[in-house]
Amino acid sequence: MSSELNGSIGIGLLGAGVVGGEVARTILNPSVSGVRDSGLGLRRVFVRDTGKQRPGIPPDLITDDAESMLSDSSIAVIVEAMGGEEPARTYIASALRSGKHVVTANKEVLAKHGDELLGIADVRNVHLSYEASVGGGIPVLAVLQDCLGANRIDTIRAIINGTTNYILTSMEESGASFQDALAEAQTEGFAEANPKDDIDGYDAVYKLCILARLAWQVPVYPSSVYREGIGRIESKDLRYARELGFKVKLLAIGTVNAFGIRCRVHPALVPAGVPISNVNGVMNAVEFNGDLVGPLWLQGRGAGAGPTASAVLADIMRVARHIESGAVLRVRAGEVRRQRILNTDRLRVRFYIRLSALDRSGVLAKIAAVFGERKISIASVIQKDLDDSQGIADLVVMTHPAQESSMREAWKQLRDLDVVSKLDNVIRVEDYGCGTGR
Amino acid sequence: MSSELNGSIGIGLLGAGVVGGEVARTILNPSVSGVRDSGLGLRRVFVRDTGKQRPGIPPDLITDDAESMLSDSSIAVIVEAMGGEEPARTYIASALRSGKHVVTANKEVLAKHGDELLGIADVRNVHLSYEASVGGGIPVLAVLQDCLGANRIDTIRAIINGTTNYILTSMEESGASFQDALAEAQTEGFAEANPKDDIDGYDAVYKLCILARLAWQVPVYPSSVYREGIGRIESKDLRYARELGFKVKLLAIGTVNAFGIRCRVHPALVPAGVPISNVNGVMNAVEFNGDLVGPLWLQGRGAGAGPTASAVLADIMRVARHIESGAVLRVRAGEVRRQRILNTDRLRVRFYIRLSALDRSGVLAKIAAVFGERKISIASVIQKDLDDSQGIADLVVMTHPAQESSMREAWKQLRDLDVVSKLDNVIRVEDYGCGTGR
Repeated sequence: MSSELNGSIGIGLLGAGVVGGEVARTILNPSVSGVRDSGLGLRRVFVRDTGKQRPGIPPDLITDDAESMLSDSSIAVIVEAMGGEEPARTYIASALRSGKHVVTANKEVLAKHGDELLGIADVRNVHLSYEASVGGGIPVLAVLQDCLGANRIDTIRAIINGTTNYILTSMEESGASFQDALAEAQTEGFAEANPKDDIDGYDAVYKLCILARLAWQVPVYPSSVYREGIGRIESKDLRYARELGFKVKLLAIGTVNAFGIRCRVHPALVPAGVPISNVNGVMNAVEFNGDLVGPLWLQGRGAGAGPTASAVLADIMRVARHIESGAVLRVRAGEVRRQRILNTDRLRVRFYIRLSALDRSGVLAKIAAVFGERKISIASVIQKDLDDSQGIADLVVMTHPAQESSMREAWKQLRDLDVVSKLDNVIRVEDYGCGTGR
Repeated sequence: MSSELNGSIGIGLLGAGVVGGEVARTILNPSVSGVRDSGLGLRRVFVRDTGKQRPGIPPDLITDDAESMLSDSSIAVIVEAMGGEEPARTYIASALRSGKHVVTANKEVLAKHGDELLGIADVRNVHLSYEASVGGGIPVLAVLQDCLGANRIDTIRAIINGTTNYILTSMEESGASFQDALAEAQTEGFAEANPKDDIDGYDAVYKLCILARLAWQVPVYPSSVYREGIGRIESKDLRYARELGFKVKLLAIGTVNAFGIRCRVHPALVPAGVPISNVNGVMNAVEFNGDLVGPLWLQGRGAGAGPTASAVLADIMRVARHIESGAVLRVRAGEVRRQRILNTDRLRVRFYIRLSALDRSGVLAKIAAVFGERKISIASVIQKDLDDSQGIADLVVMTHPAQESSMREAWKQLRDLDVVSKLDNVIRVEDYGCGTGR
């Protein structure tokens, strides 16, 4: 058990999958002096299946006994790299209660149980670090917490789900259908067999909760984030958007105004040319807007073994420095503010609307009347892809900024119009200063 | 002197110009809880001219006695916002020797005297923080030091001088001459009356020295950085570059290979479309490439009161947290490695060459022969802007990757050719994976 003798700061690792394995190998064979000098010693690696080959990890470190690892007094830092809600949450809570520092990449646990866990860490005066939970290797949380501390943040806009961005990029570039692009992403290893968490926006919601909490010291739970996935986006939406000068991205947006905080995850049209429109494939990007710093943009690989391990290791090294310095930690759960979490009713944005309408005179007048009644002003209408046999055409309507509640009412009314055979899609526009409203 | 009673951590400020004034006002009237809770108290503000109005700063804080401020035992942190080499360097050294922490935005002092000053800080066990010295509000140094600590960095590529980027962008967009664009930048406040430090690349060199030291734990002094400013760039170079699919940017590039570290600041052609080609105006951007994280991109405002104050305040708040936690600091000057600093002789890049040649048959053959002799392979030649009266035309040659020392020899030989009336410009190409060589 020679490996146990190395390093003064004992590390216990929960999970030895893609990320956990990379973290273990880097601690065991550090290539840079920063890791070597941190005095880390990997003591135990918990896995569910002890029979599986773990290249680069000495078998004597492997255990399937989580409890004994969590109570091992030679371990100062628990690194959780299992993912999923349970048993990760239970293990993290138990480690914190035993006075161990915890480093995790688990966005779901942090989004759903962050308050509880940070509270335990606070009481026990230990670190709970979770840089890798948002944006993979991009140091989003350190920048927000540590580097922008003097700023009042007013906006967060981000592409923080690589799977959906990969699918949208590949639909955009090849004209593939959503289903084909998803299948390709699964083949390439960029989407899971059960892709629901990514496709439906849950993953991005978790990450946005974490960002919003740090930016505004407000507990934001997944249930209070507006969420819409990319399952309804068709390749023709991407084509029409492009003709109108836009790309479609799944955005995570947090804003604050005098009334409260609004968080939303949904596909959005963004003007081609703004930086976020050029974030392609599995890349992630996060933009903060602060009163002093102005817009600050971070971009990099949001997933994968290397980038995630980079963030996990940065957290571990930071904790190690604190342990070494003998600092009396002041881990602050944050003075939690009671700020309202707004829904999207009063959100004002432009809308892209695609519907199938009869190709007949007077149709446009009827549709325009519905918008007019709701005081939604139309910016442009284009007719596309006429299906002659059925006498039905695609109509694409772009509005001026309108209130979302009005749009919802108009939507219901449009559905009842006899000249409209189908309401296909409505997508918000994120104008980046080219329009108004946020 | 009621203002002296606030805050448990005494701050002394050297300089109350654009940046110093903003820092002072934010400490005195913090708008975010992060600053309020840091317990900062502004004790003294040193200025050279005590008669000048300092809006928002109580006159009783103003002093022109630097010595007494530097020895004031109620001051724990000295913030240097004077700029320039002296007396800033002397004041910083003196503050550190008195056991005070120092936060500075001074790139020149850090680049030229960083080793000495970090050594003093190390001995006295105090912080010397300088986030604002590179990239304004972009937290470049924190990311490099604190967040990428587990990575082996192989490349730094950056636009870290706002003045030159503003001038190049405005030449590009309006077709203005260098002199007109410079004059405009001066009018707009984006260039100083004496713009030499920016235009000739010194400012970017200082910043690259600071980045290289942190990335590779090697002292890199300005004298060992290859430096070339933008003074030779004409608007026709930007025009020809655009026709060839490139933009021209002043880049700061640091790379490491098996032989050593190479740092260089010079104008470069970058492919239109790569992210750095879209960094316009006074924006700064820094790209790190790490073995774990891959490419990581940071972009934001590189100068100005707000962004710089944002970085200075983040440093102050970090130091305050350490003071408050009672941590026995371990400020490491870094285990300095003895790595070779390479010159550009063996640099292999593509070159853009513009020369004025006689418009006569056989000219191209003579020019091509010079390149051929030096084994420099030509990728394309275009003839532009024929001046009929003189029978002279612009020739623009793009090479394949070639060794810089060979290019220098070819350059000398071209000068002696009777068919060449003038060698106008040679600019390196930074291919971003579209070509080879770095």
